[in-house]
Amino acid sequence: MTLERRELRPDDIAVQVNYCGVCHTDLHAVRAHTGRGGAPLVPGHEFTGVVTDTGTDVTAFAVGDPVAVGNIVDSCGVCGMCAAGQENFCREFPTLTYGGTDRHDGTTTLGGYAREYVVRDRFAYRLPTGLDAAGAAPLLCAGITVWEPLRALGVTSGTRVAVIGLGGLGHLAVKLAVALGADTTVVTRSAGKADDARRLGAHDVLVSTESQQMDGARDRFDVVIDTVSVAHDLEPYLRLLAMDGTLSQVGYLGPLTVQATDLLIGRKKLSSAGSGGRPATAAMLDFCAEHGLTADIELLPSGRVNEAFDRLQRNDVRYRFVLDLSDL
Amino acid sequence: MTLERRELRPDDIAVQVNYCGVCHTDLHAVRAHTGRGGAPLVPGHEFTGVVTDTGTDVTAFAVGDPVAVGNIVDSCGVCGMCAAGQENFCREFPTLTYGGTDRHDGTTTLGGYAREYVVRDRFAYRLPTGLDAAGAAPLLCAGITVWEPLRALGVTSGTRVAVIGLGGLGHLAVKLAVALGADTTVVTRSAGKADDARRLGAHDVLVSTESQQMDGARDRFDVVIDTVSVAHDLEPYLRLLAMDGTLSQVGYLGPLTVQATDLLIGRKKLSSAGSGGRPATAAMLDFCAEHGLTADIELLPSGRVNEAFDRLQRNDVRYRFVLDLSDL
Repeated sequence: MTLERRELRPDDIAVQVNYCGVCHTDLHAVRAHTGRGGAPLVPGHEFTGVVTDTGTDVTAFAVGDPVAVGNIVDSCGVCGMCAAGQENFCREFPTLTYGGTDRHDGTTTLGGYAREYVVRDRFAYRLPTGLDAAGAAPLLCAGITVWEPLRALGVTSGTRVAVIGLGGLGHLAVKLAVALGADTTVVTRSAGKADDARRLGAHDVLVSTESQQMDGARDRFDVVIDTVSVAHDLEPYLRLLAMDGTLSQVGYLGPLTVQATDLLIGRKKLSSAGSGGRPATAAMLDFCAEHGLTADIELLPSGRVNEAFDRLQRNDVRYRFVLDLSDL
Repeated sequence: MTLERRELRPDDIAVQVNYCGVCHTDLHAVRAHTGRGGAPLVPGHEFTGVVTDTGTDVTAFAVGDPVAVGNIVDSCGVCGMCAAGQENFCREFPTLTYGGTDRHDGTTTLGGYAREYVVRDRFAYRLPTGLDAAGAAPLLCAGITVWEPLRALGVTSGTRVAVIGLGGLGHLAVKLAVALGADTTVVTRSAGKADDARRLGAHDVLVSTESQQMDGARDRFDVVIDTVSVAHDLEPYLRLLAMDGTLSQVGYLGPLTVQATDLLIGRKKLSSAGSGGRPATAAMLDFCAEHGLTADIELLPSGRVNEAFDRLQRNDVRYRFVLDLSDL
């Protein structure tokens, strides 16, 4: 179908979208979309491309610049959270890249599964030189979502980190944790992913169905990044935490239930994370460029998007689908 | 009734119990006790008294020393948690002061609602000079339970602390937070407790049923100590947390359910606490002596224990009952 993007506002840029990652959120959104209510659904909130036009006030970008856009495209800019560079927590709620409401004209935003996107300049990021533009696309949602808790929880050289689940989020959590110097362990249901985990840099692998392995790893980690995308029992993963450790739930964002005593014993903490602010996103991109770090992707022509969805639903992807929009 | 305490082991001391606090745990234990299964139930796990006898190896205490005992009377002593001075998290589970299982003879421990207690020397604490022995008793359970999270969460001068609920735990949390220099606010359902809260040192009071007050305090606190003793919705209290803040649930130790997004937005954390290790307990007692800080109590002859239970169940106590055991 043909979409009409808005006329450029003074602080807008137009982006030719080249690569857009396929996020679990996209799958949920498409499966839940009924078509009623008017606005079409165009998913896609982690993409890279090239600037094709700039608004009259734009100074940070020029036509031809490689850029990246994530899952937030606007915020109020004045609340405490925005002032602190945490636009993802904007008090007025940030404008999502798709399915959001534009702060100026009230229209529903349409995402990056398209050949063009128009975005406020401050929510586009310069794609650092040397980063593969296709592999970099998933950094803008999956990457920043795991980068935020890794940084907020002070992960650095020697921190003991466990990553639960080795999918789109998990494999980037492993790469980022390893690059940060953390002693990184993957916890997976699939023993078959052990080799892959080590190839990604993990120092150890635990198979979550092997109770002896899990028991032996009790109290071992300072930080657990839980990327499992469905509701699940947190207790086995809280047990992995050392004294004063924190489990950050990033995969499943529904209700979480824990036994208070599972937090009490060992003074553990439960947290969550998703997306990130502008400074953190820019810092992550720089860090990734420095470490030559991008997602492991399967690149598909955009016409095969339904195949990507079907396989994503079966967790059959290593580790992120990226759509090549140049066929549009 | 008459209890027979064990013969002193080499590292035991005998304590004449003078004052024992009445904890919510005692009430639950008594109400749940069926009398079946043999062992009688003797509650009481926060008491003060005087050493009346010492085992052959005891060097830390002498007859006549004022001492205090909390809710743990033994632990394995060799696991990582014990080695770290967190005997309350002992891998083999610490021996509780009552209703626990003695590590040596397998008997069920009987608590401090009694005139005498026999305890391993390392789980008795010298009561610092100047602390009122009756008002100090509740420090050993209620006090340490709130001291632990205040310290673990780094509460210090200027930290913004909210204490939810003004009961046995809450009023000590207020006193301790204020003494630590925190900017301390009480959140209570009872507007009638506002004066009391300020008398205890609180700098501000929020009435939790006044939505305007609660809305106005959104994102205001670094630490929330939630002392409410029944299951309740955590969301209104999570909203009070500032960016990267932590809510520590100390009053209700059952299952806790939160929406992941209520943690995600603002990168908040949920934790819990209860009891404390030996070094923290000793440090708390020293801190309390330094600040002349004890519980606000109602002292009752031990014969009126059932009256204490009935009133405690109605939250009709300001703020902790302490039994005077000298009538036994």
